[in-house]
Amino acid sequence: MERESIEVINTHFVFPNDTNNYGTIFGGKLVEMMDLAGALSAIRFSGEDVVTASIEAIDFRIPIKQGDIYELRSKVIYTAKTSMVVKIDVYREEKPAYKRDFCCRGYFIFVAIDKNGKPKSVPKLKPVSEDDRKFWGVGEIIKRRALERRELTA
Amino acid sequence: MERESIEVINTHFVFPNDTNNYGTIFGGKLVEMMDLAGALSAIRFSGEDVVTASIEAIDFRIPIKQGDIYELRSKVIYTAKTSMVVKIDVYREEKPAYKRDFCCRGYFIFVAIDKNGKPKSVPKLKPVSEDDRKFWGVGEIIKRRALERRELTA
Amino acid sequence: MERESIEVINTHFVFPNDTNNYGTIFGGKLVEMMDLAGALSAIRFSGEDVVTASIEAIDFRIPIKQGDIYELRSKVIYTAKTSMVVKIDVYREEKPAYKRDFCCRGYFIFVAIDKNGKPKSVPKLKPVSEDDRKFWGVGEIIKRRALERRELTA
Amino acid sequence: MERESIEVINTHFVFPNDTNNYGTIFGGKLVEMMDLAGALSAIRFSGEDVVTASIEAIDFRIPIKQGDIYELRSKVIYTAKTSMVVKIDVYREEKPAYKRDFCCRGYFIFVAIDKNGKPKSVPKLKPVSEDDRKFWGVGEIIKRRALERRELTA
Amino acid sequence: MERESIEVINTHFVFPNDTNNYGTIFGGKLVEMMDLAGALSAIRFSGEDVVTASIEAIDFRIPIKQGDIYELRSKVIYTAKTSMVVKIDVYREEKPAYKRDFCCRGYFIFVAIDKNGKPKSVPKLKPVSEDDRKFWGVGEIIKRRALERRELTA
Amino acid sequence: MERESIEVINTHFVFPNDTNNYGTIFGGKLVEMMDLAGALSAIRFSGEDVVTASIEAIDFRIPIKQGDIYELRSKVIYTAKTSMVVKIDVYREEKPAYKRDFCCRGYFIFVAIDKNGKPKSVPKLKPVSEDDRKFWGVGEIIKRRALERRELTA
Repeated sequence: MERESIEVINTHFVFPNDTNNYGTIFGGKLVEMMDLAGALSAIRFSGEDVVTASIEAIDFRIPIKQGDIYELRSKVIYTAKTSMVVKIDVYREEKPAYKRDFCCRGYFIFVAIDKNGKPKSVPKLKPVSEDDRKFWGVGEIIKRRALERRELTA
Repeated sequence: MERESIEVINTHFVFPNDTNNYGTIFGGKLVEMMDLAGALSAIRFSGEDVVTASIEAIDFRIPIKQGDIYELRSKVIYTAKTSMVVKIDVYREEKPAYKRDFCCRGYFIFVAIDKNGKPKSVPKLKPVSEDDRKFWGVGEIIKRRALERRELTA
Repeated sequence: MERESIEVINTHFVFPNDTNNYGTIFGGKLVEMMDLAGALSAIRFSGEDVVTASIEAIDFRIPIKQGDIYELRSKVIYTAKTSMVVKIDVYREEKPAYKRDFCCRGYFIFVAIDKNGKPKSVPKLKPVSEDDRKFWGVGEIIKRRALERRELTA
Repeated sequence: MERESIEVINTHFVFPNDTNNYGTIFGGKLVEMMDLAGALSAIRFSGEDVVTASIEAIDFRIPIKQGDIYELRSKVIYTAKTSMVVKIDVYREEKPAYKRDFCCRGYFIFVAIDKNGKPKSVPKLKPVSEDDRKFWGVGEIIKRRALERRELTA
Repeated sequence: MERESIEVINTHFVFPNDTNNYGTIFGGKLVEMMDLAGALSAIRFSGEDVVTASIEAIDFRIPIKQGDIYELRSKVIYTAKTSMVVKIDVYREEKPAYKRDFCCRGYFIFVAIDKNGKPKSVPKLKPVSEDDRKFWGVGEIIKRRALERRELTA
Repeated sequence: MERESIEVINTHFVFPNDTNNYGTIFGGKLVEMMDLAGALSAIRFSGEDVVTASIEAIDFRIPIKQGDIYELRSKVIYTAKTSMVVKIDVYREEKPAYKRDFCCRGYFIFVAIDKNGKPKSVPKLKPVSEDDRKFWGVGEIIKRRALERRELTA
């Protein structure tokens, strides 16, 4: 079974309690929100329950300040038998001029599971746009490098 | 200036609100706790304020259940001019037999910053034990692969 | 100045701590999420800071259970000089069959404010679709009834 | 069965995390606390479990600042067969002169439910004071307008 | 200046996240709520900002279960130059028969402080009822034992 | 059965939401963290589930500020048949000079319980160091004074 991937969008405010001593969002808090957004994409794509198997990379480029609005855009970009590579991009919005900055990108691997927590097949992702095909390639690299890493750092 | 790295240990319970529908801790929640533990190691090692620059890899091997105790062990394993690679291991403890399982490992990169948020030099890590030397090597791999990834997925 | 209204969509899980003794989301918790989603719409529409002036009505039709996904859809439907009527609809998703139920609708009034907390003009909403025109009418009713209420219950 | 209504009083501090960018409490946070206080009144009055059926109106008159004390006063003011109209008033206290300001009023409708979530009869409210009789009338207006609203905005 | 002491009453639900593995409220969570209630009494009594100087004793007698309502009753019972002894009692309510159990009592010492964090005089408590006089005596014992303890355990 | 006691160390940041109006940690929040750390020591020492039976004393000596790191050191110092006296010390760290201050000490009594919530025997503590013997004596005083208090304040 093949299926197209739909982007999940979530938008939040940075609350005082989410921030460190420089008034910007904690890395760990942002990852928590990315994980939730990623799980939503993976659940909607697969129609199954999912667990986070690994985080392959997250780059924090630009800090997001208290009171800023930030938007998470999450999408399944690659599928294997039971696992899905999900890309999550984060943008911040600063108000006066509606400037929007690309702040952070992460790649997560989610695995579909059945009632007993055993891995379960997922539909195959059907790339539709040019962008889909580009990120399918990125997903493949992410997946291959995940295997390499487990050997290199064992 | 050279400095030895000291392990930071933190221990927590899994609370009801930290869990997903299978009664195990959310990946995102665990990463939040890992980021805090990692920041503590990096602050204590460098004596500076730090920000999370990237998460290079986190493998979730064994789920941690509601009510379990879990322990985070965080240590700076590699240093460059302004950045530190921190390894964070997570163990869970199940009570009757004090069984302790290795559940999760992550590699984070923290950068020391000054009052204006500009990167700042950190002391050089001085490996002492055999283990320190092994993980210095792992840290080098993590750092090299971080650079590769940015090119490969650009 | 006239401006079209864009729907803001947010998607969440119901966490254990969000639920009452029947395992369904607390009314108060759901309203908190609706208020945040509504504020996002009003900020994006007006380009200004906003405060919640009143909640005119919220009907909780179908309970949302722990572990469910719920989606908030928020949109400015009517504008006066400094105030905006925002409609927020909530849907829940139950997994196996992707069934989606309409659970809750609320009408909030937000006011744009300047740095000193004084009300500030907002752009005029430009209805585009048939639906936009229908809900402009609903917004007018909501606004008129708000004035009546203040008299009737004074 | 007839029963008098007793006011439930709750008092809180405004925490940093409860506040927006102007340092005042979020509308949504305040409603969450009002819903909890309202549920307490409805549970104590009826001796039953209750759910929030609707919020009929909340007016936010004066903002409450971080660090302020605020007091919620909640009371059942009108009863129908299975539902109760609850009025919740909010006051803030500013310290030096013990000045107390009326900040916010809301009307909520709660429904008593049995173990299966089905509506269940509640005692009839017995107005005792002049104030009780005045607000019984207000409760009637609230209830009537709730029915009208559902028609007008359907 | 002499002043009577007024009881502060707060009422809460036990939320899922407040509970341990036996489904009853965490000691630490209950103390957090007691400290807030105690601070409210001390602020209202003294008209000053206050800090918690010490907790002299808390006995947890009966556990409070998830979903229970619990009520905190807090009152200044004894005053010295800059400090106040506050007694906080906790009751739980189980629904069907409105049974109310006395669960926990604690004695806290709060100190009034000025803008610079320096101790500041408080009004003298004026005992009015028989109960007030009894607990003034208890407050004296608490205060004396606090001094003894600091010597004995130094 | 005799067993040595091992210190449990936990390290945290003071978050914005943990602080009062003077920017220092709430007494109640600190006690919550102490209770968790104390429970960890008692669970690890006894190998059983535990509940907090009482807090015998907590002295807040030096305030801990927002953004500070604080460290909790928790240890079983005395055992009776089913109960354990746990001492918890709190230190804060201020960054530039790594200055470390002793801020707070508390004595908690935990009781081991079986599946039905009934008290259960715990191993006997075996004091090893000079410090262990000193604090065994302090634990005895704490325990004796707890009994006295219940009589004196009854």
